[in-house]
Amino acid sequence: MPFAEIITIGDEILIGQIVDTNSPWMAAELNKIGISVAQITSISDRREHILKALDEAGERADIILLTGGLGPTKDDITKKTMAEYFGSKKMVVHQPTLDIVTAFFKKRNVPLTSLNTLQAEVPDNCEVLLNENGTAPCMLFQKGEKVFISMPGVPFEMMSLMTDKVLPELSKRYQLPSIYHRTILTAGIGESFLADKIEDIESSLPPNIKLAYLPKLGLVRLRLSTSGYAGPDQIAEVEHFAKQIENRVKEFWVCNEDVAFEKAILDLMQRNKLTLSSAESCTGGYLSHLFTQHAGSSAVFDGGAVVYSNKLKMSILGVNSATLDKHGAVSEETAKEMAEGALRNFDTDFSIALTGIAGPDGGTPEKPVGTIWIAVANKNETVAKRFIFSNKRLQNIERSATAALFMLLTLLRKSQYN
Amino acid sequence: MPFAEIITIGDEILIGQIVDTNSPWMAAELNKIGISVAQITSISDRREHILKALDEAGERADIILLTGGLGPTKDDITKKTMAEYFGSKKMVVHQPTLDIVTAFFKKRNVPLTSLNTLQAEVPDNCEVLLNENGTAPCMLFQKGEKVFISMPGVPFEMMSLMTDKVLPELSKRYQLPSIYHRTILTAGIGESFLADKIEDIESSLPPNIKLAYLPKLGLVRLRLSTSGYAGPDQIAEVEHFAKQIENRVKEFWVCNEDVAFEKAILDLMQRNKLTLSSAESCTGGYLSHLFTQHAGSSAVFDGGAVVYSNKLKMSILGVNSATLDKHGAVSEETAKEMAEGALRNFDTDFSIALTGIAGPDGGTPEKPVGTIWIAVANKNETVAKRFIFSNKRLQNIERSATAALFMLLTLLRKSQYN
Repeated sequence: MPFAEIITIGDEILIGQIVDTNSPWMAAELNKIGISVAQITSISDRREHILKALDEAGERADIILLTGGLGPTKDDITKKTMAEYFGSKKMVVHQPTLDIVTAFFKKRNVPLTSLNTLQAEVPDNCEVLLNENGTAPCMLFQKGEKVFISMPGVPFEMMSLMTDKVLPELSKRYQLPSIYHRTILTAGIGESFLADKIEDIESSLPPNIKLAYLPKLGLVRLRLSTSGYAGPDQIAEVEHFAKQIENRVKEFWVCNEDVAFEKAILDLMQRNKLTLSSAESCTGGYLSHLFTQHAGSSAVFDGGAVVYSNKLKMSILGVNSATLDKHGAVSEETAKEMAEGALRNFDTDFSIALTGIAGPDGGTPEKPVGTIWIAVANKNETVAKRFIFSNKRLQNIERSATAALFMLLTLLRKSQYN
Repeated sequence: MPFAEIITIGDEILIGQIVDTNSPWMAAELNKIGISVAQITSISDRREHILKALDEAGERADIILLTGGLGPTKDDITKKTMAEYFGSKKMVVHQPTLDIVTAFFKKRNVPLTSLNTLQAEVPDNCEVLLNENGTAPCMLFQKGEKVFISMPGVPFEMMSLMTDKVLPELSKRYQLPSIYHRTILTAGIGESFLADKIEDIESSLPPNIKLAYLPKLGLVRLRLSTSGYAGPDQIAEVEHFAKQIENRVKEFWVCNEDVAFEKAILDLMQRNKLTLSSAESCTGGYLSHLFTQHAGSSAVFDGGAVVYSNKLKMSILGVNSATLDKHGAVSEETAKEMAEGALRNFDTDFSIALTGIAGPDGGTPEKPVGTIWIAVANKNETVAKRFIFSNKRLQNIERSATAALFMLLTLLRKSQYN
């Protein structure tokens, strides 16, 4: 059962200019085909760091996947260092890559630079997995029993390469076990309360089944995993315990898929042919974005308004000026009128409205930063609730969105949609 | 000049369920006070992995910062393993932490569980840096010359601890050098064209100044850094080359701060007391979210509409039904009417509209997936442009937003706003 290590190369992660989203994506894909990731390592693009990391990773893992450090500019030295480490004799032009590079620039009607043509060169002793979406080649080196694969760091190039070339290649090379993961997504309950609620079930788990808590602002994802090979018996056993947990968490249960919360709601609403709109003040479009990032969301989510000013709350959503005067923009009454306005003006079955003080400024003694009113509505009723989160803006935006989703889910279930 | 290593503990990163945003943030903060990060390592929460990682990191770095693996539930074994590694004799209750834990639950009016009280226990030979925002303690261990600090993985707890406790503690313990970083943000030009454009400047850089390219869909961030101590002379030298680069990149230059593109635009508009609205179809609220994630954005960004359906394009933005019939929703004419509708209905100085086929489905031979029309408008003119990106939904959303921001910046500058 092979172990993988992921190495990301480049100062940009080490100085904190970018977030490494490649590695978790790669790890998830590797897991799906039964390869565990033993370690993820980020190093600078200096020769000696790359050499040392290759050496150490080769001791820890069977498969070493590298990303980054392959761009066209001068700060990228990965290819040269790989050639050195694997004892290549010279660099050779890889013609299919050069064809892609040439076509790439021709299509965009821009001249090919000498830097770009250099990209088509590879060490003579590597196998090239053709990168059809970019100009940097993907190189496979074999060293004894170990496989090293270097990919560009541009996320969509790396993703296509993983899906189309790297994972099939690894599946060919290894007899892969099947590890079974089972996710239970919960919302509206904190990690330690959830742990207390299911303590006896957790204690009764056999040694070959592991339970992990994966909390994220307002959500806890529970994951049951087999620790080794999962045949029908092991899968049935995991499912038995998953069922017990689901029954126990009841109204906090969202779904059993390893999907985003909003996607679970989109799926539920699409099954029931329902439409949704939003009216956002403090979350400023974040909730809309959560929905619309998912392909097919337009079947459910018709649209929404981002209304920061009172003027727009009135003109776009029809909130009464008297309501704003009397209760303020951050109030139960305004939240409800926003939700009802969205339902009416965007003509949907359900709506969500959020109004609050995301911070870090703008609070008052009565309404401190982090005070958020959320309302959800359908034709029959409007439900509003107040939350007091923190003084951290981004956190308040995220928590508000999650709380709103949980309120919508609760109203959907109350309305007999499942 | 001390080196740091960051170790994140927890299976959730290694199986790809979460993205590690802690490490880049920590790295950026460490850099600011002159501590370079030599490596970032993600490992599982197994005892033997933690022990090995502590050992290896202690060889590579002077300061080892750990995050994660300190939650209240049973899958967290970091504290126990730290106690073992550093030869602690027993666990002791840390009273100030217990007070915080107790107050935390009292405030929320929920019962304290035995799992929660366990959180206030620490190894007897560590120094506790008080975590005022959560229940997991932050522990500092000294081993020879090396400092190991373990923090909870919850981002806002870690951030407060770093800012209020860890960084001041490190500044006290080390004579820190000052490395000078200078960022130049560019947009609308690809990495290799930019490299060609400034090749001669780059070649003339002295050995103590390094230039890095940090590309991200539609943007390239250039970073000049001194490789060692930066006194007034070194800073002046970096500024000299930065100025040369700025003059060369001209219209592609955005700003000199290391800020997000949309933040640079918000700042420019706020300086000129201008307001902005948006009308989003294919980007579904993402552009609004980009703006509104920034504190103070409401001074510029009044609001916007997310309009997926043609019905809403007409009712909310006043797009003509004849325009939609004749040219379709994804067209120059519709984009322009959306921008003008936003300008009118949201009553702002500038507006941005985007309409396109984000994909992965919905394309036609004439308008393939990735076709996006973007319009920007002010009272004097409306400018529209077509882009053809890829068949990747999230990438199309991000690239569209960046392209729209660049069009807005260009129109702002054309209108003499700087």
